[in-house]
Amino acid sequence: MEKIVSLCKRRGFIFQSSEIYGGLNGFWDYGPMGAELKRNLRDTWWQTMTRDRDDVVGLDASIIMHPLVWKASGHVDTFSDPMSTCKQCKKLVRTDQWWAMMAEQAWVQSLATLVTPGTDEFHTGDLLKWAKGKGRQLAPNLALVRNPEVTIAWLVQDIEKGKRPADAKDFYLYLATEQLAVTGFITPCPHCGGELTEPRPFNLMFRSHYGPVESEDNICYLRPETAQAIFVQFKNVLDSSRVKVPFGIGQIGKAFRNEITPRNYTFRSREFEQMELEFFIRPDDAVRLIHGSVEKWHEGADLSAPRPAWGWEMWHRYWVDQRTKYYDSIGLGTDVLDYHWQKPEELAHYARATVDILFKFPFGTEELEGIAARGDFDLSQHQKFSGKPLEVFDEELKAAGEKLNEEQKNEFINGLFEDRKCAETTREEVAASADRLIKGFYLPHVIEPSAGLDRMALAVLAAAFDEETVTDEKGKSETRTVLRLHPRIAPVKCAIFPLLKNRPELVAKAREIEASLRRHMNIFYDEAGAIGRRYRRQDEIGTPFCVTVDFDTIGENGPEKADTVTLRHRDSMEQERIPIAALRDRLEAAIR
Amino acid sequence: MEKIVSLCKRRGFIFQSSEIYGGLNGFWDYGPMGAELKRNLRDTWWQTMTRDRDDVVGLDASIIMHPLVWKASGHVDTFSDPMSTCKQCKKLVRTDQWWAMMAEQAWVQSLATLVTPGTDEFHTGDLLKWAKGKGRQLAPNLALVRNPEVTIAWLVQDIEKGKRPADAKDFYLYLATEQLAVTGFITPCPHCGGELTEPRPFNLMFRSHYGPVESEDNICYLRPETAQAIFVQFKNVLDSSRVKVPFGIGQIGKAFRNEITPRNYTFRSREFEQMELEFFIRPDDAVRLIHGSVEKWHEGADLSAPRPAWGWEMWHRYWVDQRTKYYDSIGLGTDVLDYHWQKPEELAHYARATVDILFKFPFGTEELEGIAARGDFDLSQHQKFSGKPLEVFDEELKAAGEKLNEEQKNEFINGLFEDRKCAETTREEVAASADRLIKGFYLPHVIEPSAGLDRMALAVLAAAFDEETVTDEKGKSETRTVLRLHPRIAPVKCAIFPLLKNRPELVAKAREIEASLRRHMNIFYDEAGAIGRRYRRQDEIGTPFCVTVDFDTIGENGPEKADTVTLRHRDSMEQERIPIAALRDRLEAAIR
Repeated sequence: MEKIVSLCKRRGFIFQSSEIYGGLNGFWDYGPMGAELKRNLRDTWWQTMTRDRDDVVGLDASIIMHPLVWKASGHVDTFSDPMSTCKQCKKLVRTDQWWAMMAEQAWVQSLATLVTPGTDEFHTGDLLKWAKGKGRQLAPNLALVRNPEVTIAWLVQDIEKGKRPADAKDFYLYLATEQLAVTGFITPCPHCGGELTEPRPFNLMFRSHYGPVESEDNICYLRPETAQAIFVQFKNVLDSSRVKVPFGIGQIGKAFRNEITPRNYTFRSREFEQMELEFFIRPDDAVRLIHGSVEKWHEGADLSAPRPAWGWEMWHRYWVDQRTKYYDSIGLGTDVLDYHWQKPEELAHYARATVDILFKFPFGTEELEGIAARGDFDLSQHQKFSGKPLEVFDEELKAAGEKLNEEQKNEFINGLFEDRKCAETTREEVAASADRLIKGFYLPHVIEPSAGLDRMALAVLAAAFDEETVTDEKGKSETRTVLRLHPRIAPVKCAIFPLLKNRPELVAKAREIEASLRRHMNIFYDEAGAIGRRYRRQDEIGTPFCVTVDFDTIGENGPEKADTVTLRHRDSMEQERIPIAALRDRLEAAIR
Repeated sequence: MEKIVSLCKRRGFIFQSSEIYGGLNGFWDYGPMGAELKRNLRDTWWQTMTRDRDDVVGLDASIIMHPLVWKASGHVDTFSDPMSTCKQCKKLVRTDQWWAMMAEQAWVQSLATLVTPGTDEFHTGDLLKWAKGKGRQLAPNLALVRNPEVTIAWLVQDIEKGKRPADAKDFYLYLATEQLAVTGFITPCPHCGGELTEPRPFNLMFRSHYGPVESEDNICYLRPETAQAIFVQFKNVLDSSRVKVPFGIGQIGKAFRNEITPRNYTFRSREFEQMELEFFIRPDDAVRLIHGSVEKWHEGADLSAPRPAWGWEMWHRYWVDQRTKYYDSIGLGTDVLDYHWQKPEELAHYARATVDILFKFPFGTEELEGIAARGDFDLSQHQKFSGKPLEVFDEELKAAGEKLNEEQKNEFINGLFEDRKCAETTREEVAASADRLIKGFYLPHVIEPSAGLDRMALAVLAAAFDEETVTDEKGKSETRTVLRLHPRIAPVKCAIFPLLKNRPELVAKAREIEASLRRHMNIFYDEAGAIGRRYRRQDEIGTPFCVTVDFDTIGENGPEKADTVTLRHRDSMEQERIPIAALRDRLEAAIR
């Protein structure tokens, strides 16, 4: 990981935000190469998800939206992490990261050496010595350090009673607690050993105020996700575009989460960019009414092209499949990806199914994209909070409804009631929604493939990073650093070199080739230094092709070699001779 | 303007942000067509300003940066508008917009009818009657309404003394002031006629806090411009990219200004997108040292390609010329643009020259882009505040410096001193900076073409909007609404229609053409309604080309017409017959 971070800074992919001012934790800037990489990723997503399809349109909404949006979505009330504060050093600790942070601390590591591995046995003498020595520097506010005798006495007493610390975590609670009978166990601060407060929820939305006065009435939030704008504008898009369910709305844009402890480089940052699609489908009940039955997923089901009778499960699987193909097209094949199908108990309350597409980052396997089947939760919340109807009218559904006789209608309602027995709905509610369905109205259900652009950029960089030992022409071994980026997303597609910079004919020819290609792809012109070093520089930024103009090119070695150049391939380092006239087609075939 | 706003909503270009919640003043969303239009504008800017050039690289920085950035840039202290509050109705009024707001009020308009135009004459009887009638509803807090006799008495008394209200504004100060001798003149609130407070500065930056605790120590701002990130990362970009002065760094991204009164649709909004280039050049002194003299601008100077001896004036003119060519390439020719060269007294203190490129919007001629010559103000501020050296080292300059003998050095320093006499610099300071220059070090100067993406989108929509009367095939006149967008930026490049939707051969052929073109450009497939209506829909979203598949196409009228389609041109409404095989090249030539 360190090597990747260092390369990213050295070659202009990623810088710390405001670095000259000491940086700002959780914020990152993309340099010249990073900006191009992100642009390419955005473009491939937009092309694949909207322009290549006739059932998805785009949206580009504001980051600051009406505060009620976040009330309706649940973010104002529940988008929070539990957080504790140290009563002594005042530092903040995300409760669910407490143990992970403890493990990184010098005092915890040094205490661990006093415990016999596997047995949890220790000498009270060792603890006492530690408390009066090292402990004073490393964890001055730990009870064991402040009052070792009393603290150890509680521990020993409990052990004698047969109440051994259940595990390592438990052990540290004893060491942090001075007056066990009075206070109960205390959780130690990872930073100083002091006392952490009870966890309280901390909302992760950045808050600001619009308009000139800061009051409760004009609070606004930086959006924590791009998805909600799509739901809020659903009706406007439907009314202004020639789309019909099933269809999707895609959006790319910045989102903000005020993480307590941003970590893992750009993976968990406070400002990031999302690429989200909300794909709206008919509820299964509507599909059943129209088509008589609902096509459900089964092993080996054909996901290649959507069919009218698909239920939500098929659509969900379809999007997992589509997204997998997308990742493959940018160089992230199934060899570096993993899938986590959330178990029922892991699912958010509004989700029927969620798949996380994971990538094997150097710091662990982590989520790259989540694909959730969200039912009609979001649209129904916004319908409720805004008081504006967000239902669609479906001609086919109405036509199907009109064909039902009374008996069939009752059968349909009974069927719905059976399906939903488990939920807290009354027969009246079910009958009312059945009635709307039969008349052709419903709130569409949603499949949401939600990807993180910064994570994707980090993943392609991590997957592309490679070091190999190569032997130069003089037989000397050296390490070659190379970014094996897919040509579609590489920041620079082709570098153009004149063999020597002090030969005007070579330079002129190289400049001519540069000019002819530049309109069609991102080109880098470089004339400084030995050719081998110029190749290495391009390897480090992932340029898939280099073109060298030499004396053959300008016809010095006969007309048959004139107007040909050396085309050098990044991955194999192979070089071939090709005519200048063939260059553009050859390169374009590889980068599209 | 109303027609444009209505079209933009109806056809999915622009929606109010959070419209279902009543909207949020100063925030706008771009619908499917607007999102594509903005993407195309972004892409043309990025292509022209970075990828087409080998002397400009990109950056993509975070919106939230270290707060010291905005201290150094001057935004914390001086980025504010003067604002007054009404002591009665508590509404806020931007002081410099007071008179414009007054002119829009019903009470001001109704009072104006009591004054004889051109003479400023009035009957006190009329005023009295108004104060006791209409005035009570329209401006209840106006002094004239609350206490008409006294207020009128002051006015009459002053007029008798020969102190007539100097102008209409002055007249309203009298009407707002009850106890003239005690309070002095009062400025009336446009909303209720009450008393406005003295103006106080209101900072336009959105403020938030990073990290979980809201305190003075972790205030952060949403950037009010993208430019500063470029200065802050200048050194990182220079060190990681193979660039040398003169070179530029371009960036596209969101910026936020907490406008007191957002207005003119998307023109002055609180969240907007900027496209900014900072182009770094040698200071004129360095150019002189290297080349012996500095090329200055003169009428008729050749701006087509930069030359080494150009001074800042030439670079500034060059970028005005480049940007003019850019606007022409997206359909904004010099017939709809205007230029305002700021006068010395209008310039910001750091600017040496600024040109505003203006567009004739329906609501007035307003700024589209500013091109400023900013000297080294920004880099020197960041160098000072961060304590990090931001100078560049210039080999050529060092070489030139080394050639100077003592006498020449003194001459150079004397020359600099002469140049800067007007500024408050001592000879020691000049000598010190001359010494750095001679050793090859300097802070580059900057030319900044700064464009607003939302304004640009609004300008191309306004320029493209047209209504014309056309006669249909039955001889009936109707109004055709058409967006004459340049094909490069049109959201949809080509629409594909089968003549009839119930003829599978037509549909299949149309789908086949759609599939073959979709990878290469944005395509819209439509099979619903009469062909004429389908054409009109495309006219309204600015689609330059429509292709219709008819019975000729599928060979029903003989093999010579088979595999040809009707290509219909938006602007002329002309139709021509062309082979399917020629379609792609034909369209691509027009849209690139």
